[in-house]
Amino acid sequence: MAHIDLPKDLPGILGPMAFKPETAKHLNALAETLLRGPSTLTSGERELIAAYTSHQNNCLFCHSSHGAAAAHHLGRDYALVEQVKQDYQSAPITNKLKTLLGIAGKVQKGGRYVTPEDIEAARKEGATDEEIHDTVLIAAAFCMFNRYVDGLGTWAPQETMAYDDMGKRLAEVGYMSF
Amino acid sequence: MAHIDLPKDLPGILGPMAFKPETAKHLNALAETLLRGPSTLTSGERELIAAYTSHQNNCLFCHSSHGAAAAHHLGRDYALVEQVKQDYQSAPITNKLKTLLGIAGKVQKGGRYVTPEDIEAARKEGATDEEIHDTVLIAAAFCMFNRYVDGLGTWAPQETMAYDDMGKRLAEVGYMSF
Repeated sequence: MAHIDLPKDLPGILGPMAFKPETAKHLNALAETLLRGPSTLTSGERELIAAYTSHQNNCLFCHSSHGAAAAHHLGRDYALVEQVKQDYQSAPITNKLKTLLGIAGKVQKGGRYVTPEDIEAARKEGATDEEIHDTVLIAAAFCMFNRYVDGLGTWAPQETMAYDDMGKRLAEVGYMSF
Repeated sequence: MAHIDLPKDLPGILGPMAFKPETAKHLNALAETLLRGPSTLTSGERELIAAYTSHQNNCLFCHSSHGAAAAHHLGRDYALVEQVKQDYQSAPITNKLKTLLGIAGKVQKGGRYVTPEDIEAARKEGATDEEIHDTVLIAAAFCMFNRYVDGLGTWAPQETMAYDDMGKRLAEVGYMSF
């Protein structure tokens, strides 16, 4: 049961967002811009960074829903998403994305964990300043979303495929429809 | 030196926000709503929660600037702000705010650290569902802001009073003017 009185039919972040629409609109606008706005990182890559960060934070709702969104951006490849969550170094993704996931993993622990060497490794693989900026802010933002979801004790479906429809909607329609 | 090429004259979050205004506008709107929007918690109480969370994350820019904002909301009482950062249990604040700071401290570690007992303690001191919600989201949001600031390696003035003008502006004018 959630820590406060939330709509019981809505899982994860949807309950707190329905509880307080004034803050939800800014959270959704931020997610839309970060994950689906103009960027040289694809939405699939950005959703993988979001899902990976959320998995590191052990936030079931967020890593499942953004994992499903990533899968839908990437030809419904749930196996790839799972591999990125578990061991991205072995996943068939670009070296650039691996270095960005490395930065995201440091941000998840805390901003001060990011080193000049982490940044240099990403630059060597072709990452731009804006891509590094976006990676840091996506990982930071999911440290917020994850804490919002779990700090209020919301519930979440266990099964990966329970998030398939939501992932399709996030990938195709986006965050402003919630 | 920051990890990416940011305007050198702007400390803390101001550099990354100038670098990417598209995301900055949503971050500022979120901060304005969370810290200065309608609430039964005063802006002084909410800025104390923001400053305390940022201090726990060791984010100098954020705990100094929001500490200064809190001070300006509270009769420019910097000593109180410092006491809340260092040991809020001994500070001359309400028992309700102490229990909310307890929840914020759990959220800073991770959402799953918040227990039913933490929530019950806050309720016993009169905290409402909305006050608990707002506390969780403020603490979560500062886990994002702190990581954004430090994950990009921004610089920050050391001295508390270097933030006095900024704190006054945040308290009196708000976040939408940045």
